[in-house]
Amino acid sequence: MRIYGDSISGNCLKVKWTADHLGLAYEWIETDILKSESRTPEFLALNPAGQVPAVVLDDGRPLAQSNAIILHLAEGSDLIPTDAYDRARMLEWMFWEQYSHEPYVAVARFHVRYAGKAVSELEPRLVERGRAALQRLEDGLAASPFLVGEALNLADVALVAYTRVAHEGGFELAAYPRVEAWVKRVEAALKIA
Amino acid sequence: MRIYGDSISGNCLKVKWTADHLGLAYEWIETDILKSESRTPEFLALNPAGQVPAVVLDDGRPLAQSNAIILHLAEGSDLIPTDAYDRARMLEWMFWEQYSHEPYVAVARFHVRYAGKAVSELEPRLVERGRAALQRLEDGLAASPFLVGEALNLADVALVAYTRVAHEGGFELAAYPRVEAWVKRVEAALKIA
Repeated sequence: MRIYGDSISGNCLKVKWTADHLGLAYEWIETDILKSESRTPEFLALNPAGQVPAVVLDDGRPLAQSNAIILHLAEGSDLIPTDAYDRARMLEWMFWEQYSHEPYVAVARFHVRYAGKAVSELEPRLVERGRAALQRLEDGLAASPFLVGEALNLADVALVAYTRVAHEGGFELAAYPRVEAWVKRVEAALKIA
Repeated sequence: MRIYGDSISGNCLKVKWTADHLGLAYEWIETDILKSESRTPEFLALNPAGQVPAVVLDDGRPLAQSNAIILHLAEGSDLIPTDAYDRARMLEWMFWEQYSHEPYVAVARFHVRYAGKAVSELEPRLVERGRAALQRLEDGLAASPFLVGEALNLADVALVAYTRVAHEGGFELAAYPRVEAWVKRVEAALKIA
């Protein structure tokens, strides 16, 4: 498999971590989004949406969208619960991640860490919704060590990606102690600490 | 099953259409987002994210996120391809829908249809990205009648929800003839025309 990804992107690292955890062989092709390498004609032929990550599977077929890729790679593995309801809750977190977490937590971090904005210059809506997402995670971790029960699954992989670097966008993880402990737990389980 | 949904919301209608298509019994509980009925303490106990749709399954357990709900309801049905790669492409479209289509096409429609904005007052970024999403759909339909091959699946259900009402946000579907024909095809398949 070839993984086209930018190492600064949590969405891309999700795919790398999943492949590493599962022991899958791959070639990582660094694709610099700051240099628009995901907008070249070659890349657009692979993923017309012009977004990383994208993969080319061993049979030559392409696949995009971080969460769709990791769901495909992890089919039948311990990263996807066998219980249908647990699987549904995992998917609930993963769709929520793309709609209600990434657009605020990851985008704030991008502005501050890579686009040279001060935290004080961030749109208030971005900060407010990022905090709400972190609080939602904090509440979601009240009853169990991982997002869906007792074991790591793809919901944790998807959500740790930008949560672990939320401080780079000005969010104080110390205000969310369960989240902070969970980040360490997921990093240890994925051996990425 | 109880479905908490607002009839003006495409995300909620996805769940209704899927249940109807599969012949599942449910009670629809109209939940008016314009009256903040998804922010009451009762509703937040069901879905702490405060978003519709949410369902309560027959065993009393809750589930949220439109695409996670329809994936759960449709497990083992003809709305989910049996081929692993086709299933992955379906998920690719569904995650893309929540990240790159709904936040523009649905949000523009909400502003114009329900919040009293003129199309000319919409943020240019919203219009531009909504058009890009519709063009991406147009390109994606070049080779096949449905988004993933020859048959309807959940990618079509998810994406038709706001595409079919895109004109209410000022988007001209006539500019995307394959999309326009596909909307009719999906409406016919779901019997919602």
